[in-house]
Amino acid sequence: MARNAHPEVTRQRILDAAKKLFAQKGYERTTIQDILDELEDLSKGAIYHHFKNKEAMLHALVDSDNERLLPQANQEDGSRNGLQKLRNSLMMQITDTEHMTLMRDAFPLLNDPKILAENLRIWRTDSTKIAYDFIQEGLRDGSITTEYPQEAAELFSLLFNYWLAPNFYPITTLSEFKHRIHCLGLIMDSLGVPLIDHDSDMEDRLAEGFFLLASNPQ
Amino acid sequence: MARNAHPEVTRQRILDAAKKLFAQKGYERTTIQDILDELEDLSKGAIYHHFKNKEAMLHALVDSDNERLLPQANQEDGSRNGLQKLRNSLMMQITDTEHMTLMRDAFPLLNDPKILAENLRIWRTDSTKIAYDFIQEGLRDGSITTEYPQEAAELFSLLFNYWLAPNFYPITTLSEFKHRIHCLGLIMDSLGVPLIDHDSDMEDRLAEGFFLLASNPQ
Repeated sequence: MARNAHPEVTRQRILDAAKKLFAQKGYERTTIQDILDELEDLSKGAIYHHFKNKEAMLHALVDSDNERLLPQANQEDGSRNGLQKLRNSLMMQITDTEHMTLMRDAFPLLNDPKILAENLRIWRTDSTKIAYDFIQEGLRDGSITTEYPQEAAELFSLLFNYWLAPNFYPITTLSEFKHRIHCLGLIMDSLGVPLIDHDSDMEDRLAEGFFLLASNPQ
Repeated sequence: MARNAHPEVTRQRILDAAKKLFAQKGYERTTIQDILDELEDLSKGAIYHHFKNKEAMLHALVDSDNERLLPQANQEDGSRNGLQKLRNSLMMQITDTEHMTLMRDAFPLLNDPKILAENLRIWRTDSTKIAYDFIQEGLRDGSITTEYPQEAAELFSLLFNYWLAPNFYPITTLSEFKHRIHCLGLIMDSLGVPLIDHDSDMEDRLAEGFFLLASNPQ
């Protein structure tokens, strides 16, 4: 039997098929057989050679999504101040349809208490640290005036990642998301971090981005 | 062998000893042998007859603490408005040294992802509902004016239970707790729920209550 000379190509084909089906049918309803049917020329053994199970595919998709977004986050033109960088880091993720679709499809993973605990830890640490650094930069360049840089960073991370996720706090309509985003803007304002740019359509675009999380796969 | 005619008395004696030792030495460092030494006349078998393990004792202590606090919460003199009831429900717990000592001792339980996930669920639902009902009452009697009753209730529950718990967000000094409580007051104010009564020593007393959570067992 001829061995596959391009295992990376096969791996990527499996991931592309899995991503397409997770988005179409939802993660829970997609079976390994569905992925096999989608790929046609691959055997079940070939799939299991690359991924232990469906969950491993979803983890690989989340990792590759993070790798895709990271260079964009670091690509700063140097003219932005701290507040603008904080706003941009948020908008970049929330208005990215591919990212938000994957986040929605990955929600079932958070039903696993271990994965939930690990995500909460990341939201308290790494993800807080990113916001904290932007806020500190804002304090230095004068775009932010707050006595609560640490608290604002923690709440930014906790509320956007956990409180706005409709798998935890079940909200379903676009207007409910708008209400909640506006509420979060008031909170950040009260701490001296004017996160929402009221001269732009930022609030509406954030609400639309989060609304995607509450949509059902087609 | 004579059977114990008062199993409930024995059970309570074990719990009293466990509570005392958890508070003195910390939950992790207390062994079943320590509890046995404290009780002297009981056998290991008698302890295991009542409790599968140390964790079961801690669960029983938390349950009995809840039962102790509940009648106090419902004992309303009828003259309080919604805002005062919300404030009172918070103060009653946070200024109760026995309750806060037990909460501190119970923190290790939350290292278990399943128990953490279950607590998060309660904070999103039952515990949010209690705050929501007080806020609705405040809206009716005019003591609260908010466009965000649901959001304020959710954040009240999430932030007091999770964000102020030093096992999750490690803060250690009284002044750090004061800073954080003041920050939470600003947030609730921004949503139209003036939780902190600035004409009283409420802020200081809350900070002292939470500070107990960060203290080490003697």
